Formats: sequence, structure tokens, C-alpha cells
Amino acid sequence: MFKTNRKRLQSYLETFSQFGKTSNGGVTRLSLSQEDIAARTYFKEICEASGLTVCSDDMGTMYATLQGQKLLPPITMGSHADTVIKGGRFDGILGVVAALEVVQTIQDNNITLDHPLTIINFTNEEGARFEPSLMASGVLSGQFDKEKMLASTDTKGVTFAQALTNSGFEGRKENRLQQATAYVELHIEQGPVLAHHQQTIGIVEGVLGMVCYDITLLGESNHAGTTPINMRKDSMFATMKIISILQKQLQQLPDDLVYTIGRITALPNVHTVIPNQVTFSLEARHQNPKIITQVEQIIHDLPTMIDQCELQFAKLWARDTVHFAKPVVEAVTASTKALGLSHRHMYSGAGHDAQFMSHIVPSAMIFVPSTHGYSHREDEYTSYEDCSQGADVLLNTVLNLAGYPQT
Amino acid sequence: MFKTNRKRLQSYLETFSQFGKTSNGGVTRLSLSQEDIAARTYFKEICEASGLTVCSDDMGTMYATLQGQKLLPPITMGSHADTVIKGGRFDGILGVVAALEVVQTIQDNNITLDHPLTIINFTNEEGARFEPSLMASGVLSGQFDKEKMLASTDTKGVTFAQALTNSGFEGRKENRLQQATAYVELHIEQGPVLAHHQQTIGIVEGVLGMVCYDITLLGESNHAGTTPINMRKDSMFATMKIISILQKQLQQLPDDLVYTIGRITALPNVHTVIPNQVTFSLEARHQNPKIITQVEQIIHDLPTMIDQCELQFAKLWARDTVHFAKPVVEAVTASTKALGLSHRHMYSGAGHDAQFMSHIVPSAMIFVPSTHGYSHREDEYTSYEDCSQGADVLLNTVLNLAGYPQT
Repeated sequence: MFKTNRKRLQSYLETFSQFGKTSNGGVTRLSLSQEDIAARTYFKEICEASGLTVCSDDMGTMYATLQGQKLLPPITMGSHADTVIKGGRFDGILGVVAALEVVQTIQDNNITLDHPLTIINFTNEEGARFEPSLMASGVLSGQFDKEKMLASTDTKGVTFAQALTNSGFEGRKENRLQQATAYVELHIEQGPVLAHHQQTIGIVEGVLGMVCYDITLLGESNHAGTTPINMRKDSMFATMKIISILQKQLQQLPDDLVYTIGRITALPNVHTVIPNQVTFSLEARHQNPKIITQVEQIIHDLPTMIDQCELQFAKLWARDTVHFAKPVVEAVTASTKALGLSHRHMYSGAGHDAQFMSHIVPSAMIFVPSTHGYSHREDEYTSYEDCSQGADVLLNTVLNLAGYPQT
Repeated sequence: MFKTNRKRLQSYLETFSQFGKTSNGGVTRLSLSQEDIAARTYFKEICEASGLTVCSDDMGTMYATLQGQKLLPPITMGSHADTVIKGGRFDGILGVVAALEVVQTIQDNNITLDHPLTIINFTNEEGARFEPSLMASGVLSGQFDKEKMLASTDTKGVTFAQALTNSGFEGRKENRLQQATAYVELHIEQGPVLAHHQQTIGIVEGVLGMVCYDITLLGESNHAGTTPINMRKDSMFATMKIISILQKQLQQLPDDLVYTIGRITALPNVHTVIPNQVTFSLEARHQNPKIITQVEQIIHDLPTMIDQCELQFAKLWARDTVHFAKPVVEAVTASTKALGLSHRHMYSGAGHDAQFMSHIVPSAMIFVPSTHGYSHREDEYTSYEDCSQGADVLLNTVLNLAGYPQT
């Protein structure tokens, strides 16, 4: 089995962690920021120094291609270089530099493949500067409207279009990926499951479907000091009752369902005023669409009035479960097993560019462990050994997909 | 029994409702704003036209005095002219214009009293522009530090000191009320009790003691999609359990206890992230300090850990129950009965300038009904008839306190 160069991969991770380094060991590298532009420029240089052809498309997504022996659709790998504010050193960038490491290992070993290999660095995966997330892969795969994306603005009022033009990484639409044999994305898990089970590789078979609702309780604002309890329409206590009902019912569903109330807002949110309105989000994710339907049924079956407060709900969005391409998942599985790495098959609870890529290219993902499940924080951590083993799986998956005889 | 002039009182209320009138029939007249200055200027003009002497003290509080036959400490009446943003037409201003109406009725009837009568318009009762509320009565009664108050800033960075100087209503410290025989404040109830019981007059015996805590649940932020439920430290669901415990225990206490969770804040408050922290306020008010102590005991007895989340609490503030001066309350009671008005004895759940005044002057309050208990909103409403009957009680209370023989 071929293996990647651990020292070189570590060096890449360390180098890229300097672009937007924070004082606490994390990274802030918002899409198309100066830090991102510096990282992109350096990535272009080292790719070109290795003989790869680099171009950008009209969303700024970068493609670095090693020519193959034949005119075949490329095997593609990649992820994203942007981060959230005070994010970590691994989320995204690992998939980009591991792809580069894979190409260079192939070069080091004088392996010639029929297929071209293309490393993709997607623009604005995080959506942390310009909403929505998965922006460029969404446009590439026809899921998002490009004009709307160009008009997206950051908190300073800069549009994505302006930032893209100013970055110097705006390319031609003709440079978009046209066709590909496969897309494989190595990424940190961003969850605690691999670490908890002390397994090295997550063979990702798809991305969980999800649904997100806002649930609102409408009561009546009144003075906290002058309104007897029995004359109140208190939307806060009504909310607590509803959440308690929800929790009890959601606990009846399979225990691999994840559900979260991440956001709550009370109005007017003043300690001396009974809230007339409380709104909270409920999102739930599961692989099986029937379970998601059951979650929605629980919401629809909530009482419409509780403690004299009216309940309303609104579906904010939903996405269907994405199932990755079996042949690509099988190539990942075969490589992982051949390398003798501990592993588990899993679905991703988080969204990734691969979920959109799977609409147009046979795709799969490889996960490596996130310590404590932390991500999107400065202390996000994956050991260099785990990163390298993920890169080894990526390497051998690519060789497998390219039909290169494995030793 | 003497009665006030209904038409004139209504006319005053209508005129003052123009200063800061909102499109929905409410009033925005923040303390020392242009609207407040216009109201103050007009108030000064009509007082002086009636032969009253008007001055301001070093906090901008206005005193309009009708001289008495003897050099006695004045009988004082009043309230405040400032409002919250989008407040109503009655809160505060009623007590000021009713006091003026009382003085003019006394003049109309050629009544001469031994005591001077002083109408007080307290600066910044609401604290809506400059925190805290009850600012000027707090300084006058020695409860607040004047220098700290002067440094209080509005949302535009203007200090109270600047606003006061610019208003033209900054007077000398020597003008502060030195001594008084009594202070009587007519105010809308700001609660639903009088309206619910179809009673006209609230004889206010004091202001409820209160306590306010912040309660915080500390969990761990993680990705909502990737973190299995059994690996979470979810501060939101922990919060719901704590609120449920609180509610059950608070319901065991006397049912005239009022308790409110008016404010709740989750961090990071994003639908895709398990909140690592939820903080909510709990405030409670009751006349009996022992009941307040029991509320505090319930908070102190909460579990320190729940669902792997740590519970912390902090006492934000408390105030003791204020009991008004019996002779003044008795004068209000006698006047109400003599006028044959339906009434109830009650404590105020809301804070008022009278609570601070009671530290230095024998004080009491008169409430008139608030429809639906609404206040601090544009549709706050008290009928002109109720306003006039409140003014009648104020008038006869003053005559009673002045020892004027009642017919």
C-alpha cells in the first residue's frame, strides 16, 4: 500500500494554520478575506511548483489539475480553505492539503494514472462571511442561483461579487468542473463518535436529512409586578411546557435521532415584563426520512393553545438525506480495510460540499476523528497521525478509482 | 365634597398627549428630550399663569408652589411627565396634571389653606432614556449617588448631565424639596386588578418588595448535527427542567406572589449549535418579606448540576417592601369613602417615585384602573371619568391633610 508523507502533510497543515492564525491557536479565515486570499495564493504557488495547472471558476472555486494519460473525466478531491470566525486548523483545509499530498505522493512514486486528478478548493463553504453555506458547490451543482449568491453581503455591506472581483480569484464560467469520475472529500468528523469509539476512519455513506422549524408561543405582555399570575398569558412558561412535551415525544423516537433547540428569543426580553412572545428553533436530523416525518408530525400535533397562549409553527427548511455513490463508498471502504485502519460506516450530521457534489458527480467522504467532537472553535483538534491516515485512505481510494493495481 | 373640573382635566390630558404623540395614539416623551422640554415649558407657563411659583432643582425636577397662609412645610403632589418609548397617555402625566387641577379647583373655590401646595414633576422616572428609573426621586431621597446619575448615558452617548444642562431645566441644589407635610401621587394602576374587580380607586398602602436573580445553565456547545443526544451537555433542555422545577415550587407559595421570567438568552443562539449557556431572569414580588425569602430559598436549593450542566445564580438586586405613611393612607381612605367610590386597598407591584419619597416625606398613592392592565404601550387606557375621580380623591386628601373642614 502506498502511504502519504506524514511530515509534508503536517508541514502543510502548520503553514496554512498561519493564514488567519488567532491568539488561541485557532484560525479566522473568512471567505475571500485577506487571509483567505493569502492562503489561496500560496496554494496556487505550491500546486504550480508541482506541475499542476491551476484555474478558478466564476465563483472563485479553485481547481488544480495533474494531467492524466488519457482524456478521461478527472478524479476530484478537495474541500474548502475558508473558516468560521475563531474556527480551527483542520476543518476544510485538511481536505485540500491532503489532496495535494495525495498528488505529490503519486508524483513521488512515479505513478502514472489514466485519469487526471483535480484538487478543488471550494469558495465560501462555511457561509460565515456570506450566507448561505456551501455557496460555490451549491452554484456548481445547480442548487443555488448564482445571481442571488453574488448579491449576498457581509456585515460591512460588501457583496460577494465585490469581494470575489477584488480577490483576484474570479475566473471564467467555462472553468467550472464539467464532468468528473468521482469526488472524494476528506474532512474532520466535527462530532464525537469516532473519538468516543476510538476509531480512526469514518466511511461516510451520506449526509443526514434534516428539518428545521420555528415554534412560537404568543401571550400578552404585561407588567411583571402588577399582573396577578392568574390574569397572565405568559408565553415563557407556556414555552417551557411545549418544550417539555416535545422532549418527551422525541425521546420515543430512535436514539440516533439528533434534535436541538439552539435558538430562543423572548419579546420584549426585559426582566420586568411578561413576555408576549417566545420563539425557538427546533431542528432534527436522521438518515431515515420516515423518522423526520415523525418529528414533523409531533410538531403538527402540538396543542394550538396552551395556558392561554397561542402556538404557531413555521417550517424554515428541510433537506433530504443524501446517499453517496456506492462505488465511491466501496472504494473508500476497500482502502480503509486494506490499510488495516479501525473504522465505522456513518452518515454525516453536518453539511459538506460533497452533499451538493453528489448531485453531479459520484461522491463520498472520509472522516477522521475530532477530539471531544469540537469544531468551529479554536481548540478543534485532530492528531497529525489521524490526518495522515485519512490522507492514506484518500490516496488509496483515488488509486482504486483510477484502476491502478494495488500491491 | 369638592370635585375637580372634569373638562379641564381632560383638556390637560389631551394637550399633554400631543407632546411626543405617536401615530398609534401613544406617547414617546423620553426624559429631557425635545418633547419632554416642550411639555415642561408648557407646564411652567400654565402654572405661572395660575400664580404658582415654579423652580427646578439640580436634577431638573420641577416644583410649582401655591403659597399657603402660614410658613408650613408644603403638602406635595405629583408624578412624572416622561414616558417610555411608545408609552401611553396616562402613565405619570396624570399625577402631574391632576395635581395642577387640584390646585386650580382650590383656587376656583376660593379655598385658602395654611399649607403651601407644591406640584412636583420628577425628572426621569421611567429610566427609559437614562438608567436607572426613579432617578431624580432617588437622588432627592438620598438613595442614589448624584454623580453616578449625571454620568448615565443614553444610547447616543449623551450623558444625563449634558441633557440636563441643554434642557434649560437645570436648577440649583438649594431648590430641592427640603421638607414636606406629605406627598400624594395619583397614578394609573398599570395592572388589571381594579379593572377586573370593577373598582375605581386603589388605596395604595405601599410598594411590594422584590428580588431579581439571573440563573445560568452551563453546558457545552457542539454541532447540532453530529453530536449524539447521549453525548451532549445541552444547556437548553437543562434550563427547561430548572424552570419546570421553579414553577412547581413557586406555585406552592401564596397565590398573590408574582414571579416572572422576562428575559432569556442562549449562547451562541444559533439553530445549528447546541447552546453552551442559557441565562434567564427570575424576579418575584410580594408584600411579605418572608415570602420573598422563601423564593430565594427555592433558588438556593436548586440542583447545582442537572443533565450534566452546571447551574449558577446571581442575585441582581432586591428591594424591601415599602409601607406608606398611615396618616396619609388614612386621608386617602377617608376621601375615597366620603366620595362614595368603589375601592380596594392594595400594594403597588410597580415602582414609583412615591416609594423613594416615603423615605423623607409621609407618602401615599392613589391608583385608578388600567384597562386590561396595559401600560407602557400605546393603547394604555384609563377613562377620563376614572382620571377625574382619582383627582377628586387627591383633592379631598389634600384638603384633609391641610385640615380644611370637609362639608
